[in-house]
Amino acid sequence: MKIAILPGDGIGPEIVAQAVKVLNALDEKFELESAPVGGAGYAAHGHPLPEATLALAKAADAVLFGAVGDFKYDTLERSLRPEQAILGLRKNLGLFANLRPAILYPELAGASTLKPEVVSGLDILIIRELTGDIYFGQPRGVRECPDGPFKGQREGFDTMRYAEGEIRRIAHVAFQAAQKRGKRLTSVDKANVLETFQFWKDIVTDVHQEYPDVALDHMYVDNAAMQLVRAPKKFDVIVTGNMFGDILSDAAAMLTGSIGMLPSASLDANNKGLYEPSHGSAPDIAGKGIANPLATILSAAMMLRFSLNRAQQADRIEAAVKKVLAQGLRTPDIHEAGTHKVGTEEMGDAVVRALA
Amino acid sequence: MKIAILPGDGIGPEIVAQAVKVLNALDEKFELESAPVGGAGYAAHGHPLPEATLALAKAADAVLFGAVGDFKYDTLERSLRPEQAILGLRKNLGLFANLRPAILYPELAGASTLKPEVVSGLDILIIRELTGDIYFGQPRGVRECPDGPFKGQREGFDTMRYAEGEIRRIAHVAFQAAQKRGKRLTSVDKANVLETFQFWKDIVTDVHQEYPDVALDHMYVDNAAMQLVRAPKKFDVIVTGNMFGDILSDAAAMLTGSIGMLPSASLDANNKGLYEPSHGSAPDIAGKGIANPLATILSAAMMLRFSLNRAQQADRIEAAVKKVLAQGLRTPDIHEAGTHKVGTEEMGDAVVRALA
Ligand SMILES: CC(C)[C@H](C(=O)O)[C@@H](O)C(=O)O
Ligand SMILES: CC(C)[C@H](C(=O)O)[C@@H](O)C(=O)O
Repeated sequence: MKIAILPGDGIGPEIVAQAVKVLNALDEKFELESAPVGGAGYAAHGHPLPEATLALAKAADAVLFGAVGDFKYDTLERSLRPEQAILGLRKNLGLFANLRPAILYPELAGASTLKPEVVSGLDILIIRELTGDIYFGQPRGVRECPDGPFKGQREGFDTMRYAEGEIRRIAHVAFQAAQKRGKRLTSVDKANVLETFQFWKDIVTDVHQEYPDVALDHMYVDNAAMQLVRAPKKFDVIVTGNMFGDILSDAAAMLTGSIGMLPSASLDANNKGLYEPSHGSAPDIAGKGIANPLATILSAAMMLRFSLNRAQQADRIEAAVKKVLAQGLRTPDIHEAGTHKVGTEEMGDAVVRALA
Repeated sequence: MKIAILPGDGIGPEIVAQAVKVLNALDEKFELESAPVGGAGYAAHGHPLPEATLALAKAADAVLFGAVGDFKYDTLERSLRPEQAILGLRKNLGLFANLRPAILYPELAGASTLKPEVVSGLDILIIRELTGDIYFGQPRGVRECPDGPFKGQREGFDTMRYAEGEIRRIAHVAFQAAQKRGKRLTSVDKANVLETFQFWKDIVTDVHQEYPDVALDHMYVDNAAMQLVRAPKKFDVIVTGNMFGDILSDAAAMLTGSIGMLPSASLDANNKGLYEPSHGSAPDIAGKGIANPLATILSAAMMLRFSLNRAQQADRIEAAVKKVLAQGLRTPDIHEAGTHKVGTEEMGDAVVRALA
């Protein structure tokens, strides 16, 4: 089993190093190979997703990804900016299913900006389609406005689109995930305004016939954003498109107040996947040894479960993370009075110890 | 001065009746004329926006709108559904600037699902562009997928677009609103992915040159959704497109926990406007006399200020609303122990009394 390790920028290298330490502490050894990506890819090879990095990611059985982006690359033209790496990996590897759990660990209930009774015990799963929608639709660009009151002016434009097969395959992933959990699926759309999402709603409704044991409801995206704030625990699994999923999954993660704890998986049709923390590269704290490595360590656990078929090892890592939390260890982002503040390395070491 | 009164469906008629009572209690009398809209428009004339209703709205100096939508119209084909009325009014009247304050009244701090320290004193203004973007862009529909791995299948598609002049005029509204408040404007985009919003960002940056006294920053929409949950008080004025504004303004309203209190204005280039509560038609409680009329009454105040040039009357109404809250009167949606629960009519009457 070969794992591509793409640390990236900012805190990426520090947090990925801890996850690698945890992987190396398992009984079974995996073949790990690293390559630069994002700003680091640009610095090394002039492109955020160097050819060799993409080739490694394609050849590997799974990809462990840190984070990309740093102030110093903000002035590059868009096609060379770090985030193009993650878009390129998703598209080239066909990673259409993004799974983002938003879980509030009981020990961290105080970290949320929401009242404890609203979020305690929160456990929702957001499934975001990741290779379609307005992220990749053509045509797009800046052109002369062809009609209407602004005819002749410049206009920016993009194309939102979803083909039937794209909707069907993400719907299947979502219904199957719901079957393994609370058996409730909320499909988020904007069918009252968008043709793309009326079509989405129709196809999801059709796929539902194959999953009679799952309760399906449909919710407009504006209402979903409200309900996430009002009563997030009412959700079980949410499925939505790439653009709405980008917004809602970040909002849901922030509900927990501990985005440094949340892993994510992006899967292709054969459960090959890219695994990364839900948070960003946080260049402001890079190199200080204070970043929380737990989201990345938990991403490695998801990788073992979904792509490497090692559910037991995944369970072990997740249990170890729960144990260090119970021991009171906290990186600064989740630190509260009465708990023990530790740095990135110490936290990684503690997880390794807790594995035993 | 002529005001078109469009009560609509669900709780619309009840809450609009209270706002009309308040308008009629002012010293100056306005000409008020009502017409059916939404489901009521369909029931009366076979269309959610009957011709006579649109003509009245066009002829009036301002429009006071209740809410539209009811379960019984859910099975109509899309072009006949109640929400088409509001889209049609926006487009036909050129109401491109939607102003939605999210304010937390000190008396209602407990209503929020967020911790008091995170939201107490919240006062942000979201300015949403309302006649462009993917809401109205052509082409759109369901077609045969022209290329890629799903070629030949059906696909739903829509067009996102913003012309330069459309962005400029909403940017001017936003900078001018910020000048009258805390002098800080956050433009929300997704310039890292969408051509439309890279263009948006460029134009907003250009317009900024005319407003050197306003501090401008740019934020990606996913980050904005997070920051609204994490630290909403850091915002002053937010400006964004139609689609992102739909999502963020609802999320921001929900932060207050009292969406029944929040008015909105939708303005054209000459400050003619449509005024409506930020909440929906709540058909489940329609006719029970328990709906909160304050958002609609405060919408009437906004109307007096922005479209009818009667700032003093607007101030009087807003002061009256604060007074009834201070008196402890609460409709069920904002009721807490120790306050006095009242119905829709009682609340309207109390505001009229407080005007004196
Ligand atoms: C960096 C950006 C292109 C990306 C996205 O919009 O998908 C990010 O926000 C994410 O959610 O992974
Ligand atoms: C009813 C719907 C078409 C409308 C919108 O999406 O604009 C509503 O959500 C709103 O925000 O006024």
